[in-house]
Amino acid sequence: MTRDAGSPDSDGLKTPRTTLQRTPDRGSHDWDTIAAILDEGMICHIAFEAEGQPYAIPTIYGRDGRTLYIHGSPASRMLRSLAEGVPMCVAVTLVDGLILARSVFHHSMNFRSVVILGTARPVEDEAEKLRGLEVITDHLLRGRWQDARTPNDRELKVTSVLRMEIDEASAKVRPGGVADEAADMDFPVWAGRLPLALVPGEPETDPDVAAEHAVPQYVRDYKRSQ
Amino acid sequence: MTRDAGSPDSDGLKTPRTTLQRTPDRGSHDWDTIAAILDEGMICHIAFEAEGQPYAIPTIYGRDGRTLYIHGSPASRMLRSLAEGVPMCVAVTLVDGLILARSVFHHSMNFRSVVILGTARPVEDEAEKLRGLEVITDHLLRGRWQDARTPNDRELKVTSVLRMEIDEASAKVRPGGVADEAADMDFPVWAGRLPLALVPGEPETDPDVAAEHAVPQYVRDYKRSQ
Repeated sequence: MTRDAGSPDSDGLKTPRTTLQRTPDRGSHDWDTIAAILDEGMICHIAFEAEGQPYAIPTIYGRDGRTLYIHGSPASRMLRSLAEGVPMCVAVTLVDGLILARSVFHHSMNFRSVVILGTARPVEDEAEKLRGLEVITDHLLRGRWQDARTPNDRELKVTSVLRMEIDEASAKVRPGGVADEAADMDFPVWAGRLPLALVPGEPETDPDVAAEHAVPQYVRDYKRSQ
Repeated sequence: MTRDAGSPDSDGLKTPRTTLQRTPDRGSHDWDTIAAILDEGMICHIAFEAEGQPYAIPTIYGRDGRTLYIHGSPASRMLRSLAEGVPMCVAVTLVDGLILARSVFHHSMNFRSVVILGTARPVEDEAEKLRGLEVITDHLLRGRWQDARTPNDRELKVTSVLRMEIDEASAKVRPGGVADEAADMDFPVWAGRLPLALVPGEPETDPDVAAEHAVPQYVRDYKRSQ
């Protein structure tokens, strides 16, 4: 596949900085692909610089259309830095499996990832702040916001919410199985794919919960992966 | 817990930049804690800056004592930037569960994460390059290096290996269950913990593998989480 053919650019998300140089056949700027990865992911890693040092810090997030919300303590170095509008990068990566080829060289991973470049700004409006927290909460667990006790004024005051527009982004996807060299096909070793997924265990009820509050359907049916 | 008491500094990994400011009771500079998280993790996210833009890029890695190895194509923007010795940050994050409190405010995640600051340098020595690739391969799947066809000269030439010393690092761990305000304990909602783990599915044998090569023990017994 040629370098130019690999990156559908139907959604205006492609820029020179988000154009995949090396493996364009694995790259995409298609909004639906990007949105699906963001929705399945649970945490992101945010890159930013402070005093000449780049940091990569994990945090949860939520998406409302093409707006990404993050939140945290106003005292957090990351939140304070990002609120100033410094350049940032958000990465979301889903691990789907190990590709165990005959040659070490062709070992690989099945993964889906998104990288977003841009800047954030603080959400000051109280209604949008609540909306951002709803988006983040329901991103972790759809239905939870409606059930739990929503933030009061004091809690809102000590929570920073930032928004970032998703308008420069790319996705990278490595699907499929083993791809060995023809010369290695008879090498005496097993080869194949080992699928991996983030899977929930049994819900553990807090000991102080009254017996009439059963485990909600949205917890029992929780499923992260496709 | 006071700010100073929270961060054991037995291993020289603590600096002002890796000292956890906000939640020191969740922080640690203990080498064994850091090493265990690095060993259980599968991918890291690396933050670096290129042309004024910070990036967070996922990649696999391996650890040999206090040396971290990463690899990739010599054409990769990340590898080329890091080989110049620019400041970088490596983050490894394990997601262990959702904490579903009665209040949205006290929702949280069980996680374990490590952040390493430093610089990398290219591995030029061929023996160390092979050693780095062995460390990365066996980090993904212990035992695989011994079984698979190891890299030849041509493959080594088109693979960059970088090493980074782990001497400025911190871990952050959020264990435990729900911690709600006393005033919320009677709020009419279920609360608890939903454990999460990266779990392998059934190995899928490549269709061209000869029948005498059974799925290896290290694939059948694969286990990432504790």
